[in-house]
Amino acid sequence: MMDYENRLHELGVALPPAPKPAAIYIPVVRTGNLLFLSGIIPSVDGTLRFSGKVGRNLTLEEGREAAKVTLLNALAVIKAECGSLNAVSRIVRVAVHVASAEGFSEQSKVADGASNLLVEIFGEAGRHARLALGAAELPFSAPIELEMIVEIRADQG
Amino acid sequence: MMDYENRLHELGVALPPAPKPAAIYIPVVRTGNLLFLSGIIPSVDGTLRFSGKVGRNLTLEEGREAAKVTLLNALAVIKAECGSLNAVSRIVRVAVHVASAEGFSEQSKVADGASNLLVEIFGEAGRHARLALGAAELPFSAPIELEMIVEIRADQG
Amino acid sequence: MMDYENRLHELGVALPPAPKPAAIYIPVVRTGNLLFLSGIIPSVDGTLRFSGKVGRNLTLEEGREAAKVTLLNALAVIKAECGSLNAVSRIVRVAVHVASAEGFSEQSKVADGASNLLVEIFGEAGRHARLALGAAELPFSAPIELEMIVEIRADQG
Repeated sequence: MMDYENRLHELGVALPPAPKPAAIYIPVVRTGNLLFLSGIIPSVDGTLRFSGKVGRNLTLEEGREAAKVTLLNALAVIKAECGSLNAVSRIVRVAVHVASAEGFSEQSKVADGASNLLVEIFGEAGRHARLALGAAELPFSAPIELEMIVEIRADQG
Repeated sequence: MMDYENRLHELGVALPPAPKPAAIYIPVVRTGNLLFLSGIIPSVDGTLRFSGKVGRNLTLEEGREAAKVTLLNALAVIKAECGSLNAVSRIVRVAVHVASAEGFSEQSKVADGASNLLVEIFGEAGRHARLALGAAELPFSAPIELEMIVEIRADQG
Repeated sequence: MMDYENRLHELGVALPPAPKPAAIYIPVVRTGNLLFLSGIIPSVDGTLRFSGKVGRNLTLEEGREAAKVTLLNALAVIKAECGSLNAVSRIVRVAVHVASAEGFSEQSKVADGASNLLVEIFGEAGRHARLALGAAELPFSAPIELEMIVEIRADQG
């Protein structure tokens, strides 16, 4: 079995503290061996690191970086829930909602910021189904909101 | 076990009749012990009670009220499917799509109209993962479309 | 048991080759007896057959046709994964994201292009929960992005 915690270390990636929800909802719910995560935005220490729409306030490259920062938050949520990323048996589906300027149609390339890192960390288990969508607006003017469904190992909790 | 039907009564909340789908699809599909609901809008007796975009045609407060009305429709769908809300073991995930005026970024506060009521009714079992998203447009010019995944008790049906 | 492959033949419907993902993600992930598909667009032989926003670049009727073409791509993905559409036990949920011109609110009618065909092919097993949503923008300027959750027979692989 791959050690994903070790893999993170090899990649020089440090997870942030798990972000706190903005309201009464919770970051993740487990049902059976699936985790459904709440929508996650590119905040760092409680402050949005990126803001606005991709294709207007942010370049494609910045959007992709925002997707990566958001993914790290999502992984922090999974780790906080399960104790270790090694609880993951499969990344099932990732949806990347990209706040998009009129006419911006590279949501797929933005989402690659999250998808590529998932496969770097989890290898085959990180190969996921994906949605890339262009939102009109996102909460707090975030450029990215990421949703995720993850399968965890049957021997987990 | 909490009696959610009784809890509704205590809160003075009456469920509407379950809304009918606009086309050939159906309001809810069960797979295993999960219910996947169709997108639900704030209609009452077949007529939209709220219409237009939040931040332009509707205030934040009206949007939040629309989210609450929509949630009651969703609960009516669950009750029609299972016979009683007591079939629910967990609210898994709720997504609130908010038809949003340009620049409106308080989708999270709008969604609270649904989230707060879920926790009032279901307590810990109502604490859900959540997405709040800003849609460009929604069917019938509804301000809210709500999607929901619910876990039901293993002894159901 | 209905033979869905035969039903396709009766309806005179031929599935295209399964579309290839635009990036590192994969077309479908199976977890338990559920398939989660990636977002699918109305491409044929790797080229988008429809482009732009419904209500501006495309009529309602063209949007509905685009939804149908997209659905055939989704079925091709399922067939490529399972070997046959007869692996399907239930279409669980379909979401149709419609790139929408300002003020266009007939997403539900557009989505019918996919929903009606699902029920024609799968009968009762094709009756699904549905979301119809209006996106601000979609990848590659596609007018439709379709997501799908499918339950497959327990004796499958």
